[in-house]
Amino acid sequence: MKGTIINIGDEILIGQIVNTNASWMAEELNKSGIAVDRVETISDTREAIIESLALAIERSKLILITGGLGPTKDDITKQALADYFGMELKFHEPSFSNIQQLFAQYGRVPDDRYRTQAEMPEGAKVLINKAGTASGMWFEHEGKIIVSMPGVPREVKYLMEYEILPKLKMQFEFPTIMHYTLNITGKGETDLADLLEGFEEKLPSNIKLAYLPNTMTGIVRLRLSAYGEDAIVLETQLDHYVRKLPPILGSLIFGEQKDTLESVIGKMLLKRNYTLGTAESCTGGNIAHKITSVAGCSTYYESSIIAYSNTVKRNLLGVQEATLEEHGAVSEQTVIEMARGTQKLLNVNCAIAVSGIAGPTGGSTEKPIGTIWIAVTENEKIYTEKLQLGKDRIQNIERTTTIALNLLRRFLLDDLSEVSE
Amino acid sequence: MKGTIINIGDEILIGQIVNTNASWMAEELNKSGIAVDRVETISDTREAIIESLALAIERSKLILITGGLGPTKDDITKQALADYFGMELKFHEPSFSNIQQLFAQYGRVPDDRYRTQAEMPEGAKVLINKAGTASGMWFEHEGKIIVSMPGVPREVKYLMEYEILPKLKMQFEFPTIMHYTLNITGKGETDLADLLEGFEEKLPSNIKLAYLPNTMTGIVRLRLSAYGEDAIVLETQLDHYVRKLPPILGSLIFGEQKDTLESVIGKMLLKRNYTLGTAESCTGGNIAHKITSVAGCSTYYESSIIAYSNTVKRNLLGVQEATLEEHGAVSEQTVIEMARGTQKLLNVNCAIAVSGIAGPTGGSTEKPIGTIWIAVTENEKIYTEKLQLGKDRIQNIERTTTIALNLLRRFLLDDLSEVSE
Repeated sequence: MKGTIINIGDEILIGQIVNTNASWMAEELNKSGIAVDRVETISDTREAIIESLALAIERSKLILITGGLGPTKDDITKQALADYFGMELKFHEPSFSNIQQLFAQYGRVPDDRYRTQAEMPEGAKVLINKAGTASGMWFEHEGKIIVSMPGVPREVKYLMEYEILPKLKMQFEFPTIMHYTLNITGKGETDLADLLEGFEEKLPSNIKLAYLPNTMTGIVRLRLSAYGEDAIVLETQLDHYVRKLPPILGSLIFGEQKDTLESVIGKMLLKRNYTLGTAESCTGGNIAHKITSVAGCSTYYESSIIAYSNTVKRNLLGVQEATLEEHGAVSEQTVIEMARGTQKLLNVNCAIAVSGIAGPTGGSTEKPIGTIWIAVTENEKIYTEKLQLGKDRIQNIERTTTIALNLLRRFLLDDLSEVSE
Repeated sequence: MKGTIINIGDEILIGQIVNTNASWMAEELNKSGIAVDRVETISDTREAIIESLALAIERSKLILITGGLGPTKDDITKQALADYFGMELKFHEPSFSNIQQLFAQYGRVPDDRYRTQAEMPEGAKVLINKAGTASGMWFEHEGKIIVSMPGVPREVKYLMEYEILPKLKMQFEFPTIMHYTLNITGKGETDLADLLEGFEEKLPSNIKLAYLPNTMTGIVRLRLSAYGEDAIVLETQLDHYVRKLPPILGSLIFGEQKDTLESVIGKMLLKRNYTLGTAESCTGGNIAHKITSVAGCSTYYESSIIAYSNTVKRNLLGVQEATLEEHGAVSEQTVIEMARGTQKLLNVNCAIAVSGIAGPTGGSTEKPIGTIWIAVTENEKIYTEKLQLGKDRIQNIERTTTIALNLLRRFLLDDLSEVSE
């Protein structure tokens, strides 16, 4: 089964936003066995919508449309679709009551514009959108399925997961596809491909290996997909190949499926009954932000001191004046003292301390931009590492965050030798 | 002049990468007065390339194609284009010598595959690509311009900046497009549309207003675009309408063009010679992360205490045991003491303190999930606000971050009345 994705919206065409919906949708559809063979981004004009729709209907069996369903005047997708399919818009009670419920959460009542937003083409299946005020619409036309949904990524995800993919699976027989993802950090896509050359060569033709790198964070998802008929056969086969990976990749693998570094560390800390504190200079709270994105982290996560200034490093964390003067704020000795100071101040088992030059200014010949020191501790044991990253501030912050969390993980696994202070 | 962008590559269609080329190219073309009215992502098959190309030539005057020019077997764009235009491929000396120079930088010599890569369609203008081994190609056909370039973002940028945009500017007179963006928070898209109804009705037909909301952070970008011939006329006209917005929207506008809340606050603090510290409970470092994403923030940003536990609230920030017992950690009294404690501990002029229940667990009847207290201070003055947000943890963290930063901004502007402690 082939599908087309049509994203409606001028904000992509003038380059104001990047089209993340298309990638996410394409990945989900592929996982379900639906190949996407075209993604179109078009402007929110009636002519463009109708032209693309007519061509897509000729070409594909499934057309997924995002965008242009908001309550404002420039949102014209619904009217264009209703006209194309010769349907009348009619007030749709369940859509309006969904809007009322969403408003009620904030103690508010929707105004008349939302009555218009709750008008739906008579004859379309309405997909109630619990993540937003615009309902989705499901049309069937000349044996083709056309689905329209809003453009907000969170709403796209809700409607795809809870409405569209389940309905597609009920209506069609798809080849069975099973996926298994291993999450990796510490090596890039090319190095991983070298390590896995022999493994890849021996894969049967119904099993595919995909590298899904995030170059910003330095995390690579390695996805094995098995295609076939029988779910039990595929599961056994997939399991057979998944098991071959840990002996090759070792501790480069930090988790599987939806694991994140921060959720994995959370589980490790809970299991050991450990508490964690962090002291961040150049990452400016991003490590704390990741750790606290895990629900329930308050059991093991005590606090972070964002030590942007030397004053804070000295007064709160107890870094010695002499250390700062002799070695500088970006040095092994400073991060060791920051980590020890964090353990003492917060009375925690484990600490992560980071100090570095994120850029774009602040570098020197001796310590260029991208020089970053990290220390991690487990009770009395300590490990340090120096990074030499690039010149991009945001990438330096993201990569350092990944590396620091990964060092704590590996240190807790005894995968790194402690250093002497 | 209207343009179409065609991105060739399966990695977008299976969701492996996000199409950043399209956004970047669209933004550059728009700035030069070329409206992009369609972006297509297609698979790297001959049929798809030729079908899209034929349709695009019917529709647009300019077609920019990326991808499929590498040295491997699955790169078939060049051959497809040569066939389409009835041209022969012929070895192109300057392209090969460019490849040799690129290899020489790493002390290497290109193999025979690269002689094939240096074959170019006879009759096309060849665009030498100093950022990579694949040359670009410029075709003119039935009064249309078709340009093909590689898909690597760095190479796209090189060829666009140094070859394609300059050639286009020499060859054509462009209609002019000018954009102006105002950045807003405090009201959603719908409420803004209400406020701007009268304004929108009076806009001439060559000026368009677009709402670009980020529902995660609660920030809306409001973009005015003027279309016409004469840059000076348009600038005056755009300016005329931009000036009408502040009287309507007041302090809802926090910045213009590429301003962010954190960059605006940074400038305000610098101007007042103020320092800032933050104490975050439920936002877990996200406020610090935003503030420190601004280069140069170390001048005014001292530190953040991520006070996840009551111990840290008490021991570091000096929140009284009695306050926590009587009012709880999520209370006006607690955030007041957190803010005052931050000012004292870090010796800063301004503080932001946040305490709340981000979810998905931890709520009670009295204080449901989404209950969040914020305090902001400017020297001895203090302002507090209670939020009642939804149930989504990540959205609660993002929205609270936006609201807290915005409260500090408005408090510094004397747009909020202080409260008594």
